[in-house]
Amino acid sequence: MISSSPFPMSRAFLGTMAIVLLKTVFVPFCSPSCKIILMKLNPNSLLINSERMRRDFEELARIGATTQGGVHRPALSEAHLEARRWFRDQVLAGGLQFHTDSAGNHSAVLPCASPGAPSLLLGSHLDSVPDGGRFDGALGVLAALEALRVVKEAGFSLPVNLEAIDFTDEEGTLVGLLGSAAIAGKLSPQDLLNPRGGRNALLAALERAGLSEEGLLQAARPPGSLAGYLELHIEQGPRLVREKTQIGVVTAIVGIASYQVSFVGRADHAGATSMQDRLDAAQGAAAFILSARQITVEHFHGCVCNVGAASFAPGAYNIVPARVELALEFRAPDAETFSRLESALLDSAQEQAARSGLGLEIEFRGKHQPTVMESAVKVICDAAADLGLSYIALPSGAGHDAQSLAGLCPVGMIFVPSEGGASHSPREYTPWEDCVNGANVLLHSALKMASSL
Amino acid sequence: MISSSPFPMSRAFLGTMAIVLLKTVFVPFCSPSCKIILMKLNPNSLLINSERMRRDFEELARIGATTQGGVHRPALSEAHLEARRWFRDQVLAGGLQFHTDSAGNHSAVLPCASPGAPSLLLGSHLDSVPDGGRFDGALGVLAALEALRVVKEAGFSLPVNLEAIDFTDEEGTLVGLLGSAAIAGKLSPQDLLNPRGGRNALLAALERAGLSEEGLLQAARPPGSLAGYLELHIEQGPRLVREKTQIGVVTAIVGIASYQVSFVGRADHAGATSMQDRLDAAQGAAAFILSARQITVEHFHGCVCNVGAASFAPGAYNIVPARVELALEFRAPDAETFSRLESALLDSAQEQAARSGLGLEIEFRGKHQPTVMESAVKVICDAAADLGLSYIALPSGAGHDAQSLAGLCPVGMIFVPSEGGASHSPREYTPWEDCVNGANVLLHSALKMASSL
Repeated sequence: MISSSPFPMSRAFLGTMAIVLLKTVFVPFCSPSCKIILMKLNPNSLLINSERMRRDFEELARIGATTQGGVHRPALSEAHLEARRWFRDQVLAGGLQFHTDSAGNHSAVLPCASPGAPSLLLGSHLDSVPDGGRFDGALGVLAALEALRVVKEAGFSLPVNLEAIDFTDEEGTLVGLLGSAAIAGKLSPQDLLNPRGGRNALLAALERAGLSEEGLLQAARPPGSLAGYLELHIEQGPRLVREKTQIGVVTAIVGIASYQVSFVGRADHAGATSMQDRLDAAQGAAAFILSARQITVEHFHGCVCNVGAASFAPGAYNIVPARVELALEFRAPDAETFSRLESALLDSAQEQAARSGLGLEIEFRGKHQPTVMESAVKVICDAAADLGLSYIALPSGAGHDAQSLAGLCPVGMIFVPSEGGASHSPREYTPWEDCVNGANVLLHSALKMASSL
Repeated sequence: MISSSPFPMSRAFLGTMAIVLLKTVFVPFCSPSCKIILMKLNPNSLLINSERMRRDFEELARIGATTQGGVHRPALSEAHLEARRWFRDQVLAGGLQFHTDSAGNHSAVLPCASPGAPSLLLGSHLDSVPDGGRFDGALGVLAALEALRVVKEAGFSLPVNLEAIDFTDEEGTLVGLLGSAAIAGKLSPQDLLNPRGGRNALLAALERAGLSEEGLLQAARPPGSLAGYLELHIEQGPRLVREKTQIGVVTAIVGIASYQVSFVGRADHAGATSMQDRLDAAQGAAAFILSARQITVEHFHGCVCNVGAASFAPGAYNIVPARVELALEFRAPDAETFSRLESALLDSAQEQAARSGLGLEIEFRGKHQPTVMESAVKVICDAAADLGLSYIALPSGAGHDAQSLAGLCPVGMIFVPSEGGASHSPREYTPWEDCVNGANVLLHSALKMASSL
């Protein structure tokens, strides 16, 4: 019998106890005052409280709600800060500890009885892209909170602190993966000097939230203090829906690189200069836009590339473009493919420029190596299987806070279907049953991961 | 013997006299006080004063001079207004009348002795594009002024008023072909409401120059008051240099049309959406940029097309472009080809959009039909031949004030070589000998045209 009351116990002993518990007992939902653990054979019967999580979800979705049915909660905006106050209230109402750090990450903590135990983080983020959806981020935070409440109510004592964390600025309104990079010790002063949302927006947001650059740079958790990180998220793609599968087990977060690729010709009078006499930067740029797609489709299955923006200069109807700057981004699921894709695309840019007699300038804009997440794949698959849910392994094409934490501790992600593959859109919709399935897989993966320590 | 003193004479008689004069006499350069006409057989010996025109050219080039060796005299800027004051001083110093109209056009006038005679305009413009060259426009105005001085000094009396005109805003800093459209009665209030340089810039410029919208709209010359229009201009293309030819006789100003062509796809997460699931507006746009060039080169010899600007929306590295708007312009030398080119390009846009599963929106942005200039080609060719200069007929790929006046009176243009085909650039350079050749062709074409009335 395991009590939730804190009592001194060695970590090894607690670990053993947890394993014994998970392999042999059934702990049903019961009120916080109920300390009796019922012995059953199937640990999978421990389930999150669907109705309570749904009430949370609906309350949270009202904060920053848009008329299109989504939410507008850019990082550290008033709506985001209100969502965080609401989260703190739920944490305290659930009898959990509320923590915040100098990077502005907010956490519910179910502390381990053993002082100095590492923390198993479950979480996601409450910020959204501008005019985003209700599910991205929010579902993961609420499922994490619910998992802590269930574990607490079940009276479990785990060999880790269980922490439901809401990371600051995952979406990149300001910097991107900001809170997770901060606790991982991967944030540099340089990242804050030229942030993608602009320096002024960052400084204003920090002031609004009572945060500081110094605080961000000093938020790293001590080495060894993290036992793992698990996140539930909507898929942001159509594969689970298309394959009628309930759970996606993320094997990797794809590597992502971005470059500004500029084709350089010569500005000429677009009327008085014959077609033969032009050095038209748009011709090289257009050929590259087509070839980049073709290369990726034909030779890099599972990879993607995008030319998301272009700037023509001088940029007039009647002047031959002297310079076309393209915003190129590409992603691949493993380091070897990532590197080959990069070479193939940049070589193709060179080839297309040469073919049109143009100059080429390539400016590096950023790179995250692929994040392989093997460490948690097995526990998540096992959790899904135990719960009788269908699952497939798949890479995440989108970036997530798990990238920041990878290398410091085991990280894992659980996807649930998103209708139409909608993402960063008010169209985001995941049937509630799928949300609950995902939350249960999160809970059971966490218990399995904790038991394995 | 023909005197320059005003005296009443019928237009028919004057015309006859002029023809007799031009076919039989030689009038050498002489001082304004010299009224003696020497009888010789070759009228081509009447020549402009190269040194005087060169002094003018160099003085004018100092007004708004740029460090790159060009001039910066956007329409009705301080530099342009200073150039106009300088022009007025030269007009008056040359003993010519100075006129200005309510469209701000400035003219030197050598009046006809016969009241009510029509005016033969020679001219161009003193405004430049931003950071433009010294030759574009300026050469044509100075050659026109010099032609009037020579005719005046020769003591000719022509059956027309001879007018050297500096048109307001040819280059389109504000509206484009503004002064010429105004005197042609082709300017509408609508043209002033949404001018290409912006409404505020237009209003500020008019105030600076002491002009008004009402004045612009009331500047039309009376029907029948224009005997013709001749302009000397640098070629703005490489053909004369390449063909080692001294004079270009413009047969047509190409028709020009512009459209905004928009390819419409769907914004998706550029990481989480597979290549197969995208509706990437950039793919259709890029395919069209290539096909537009290919169609023009392969099937429309002598025509040009340009995609001079593009706007991607939402316009981010990590979002598949939902919409790409292209600025398409194309030109053709005759109405039938112009129409076929238009169909071919817009059909191709439709085809490329369909091939990528995209929507297409086409917005008309403006059109000038080709301006055939047959009426003056023969006199200009004859003038060049008489002067022993090599010449070829060619279309103008650039727009000029002659377009405004076409249809109202005979119009003609004379091109001289521009090294490297430079245009709208400080690189503009035409050897002085070529400038003088062009000015002499202008002078003799004017005399021939006057004599033919």
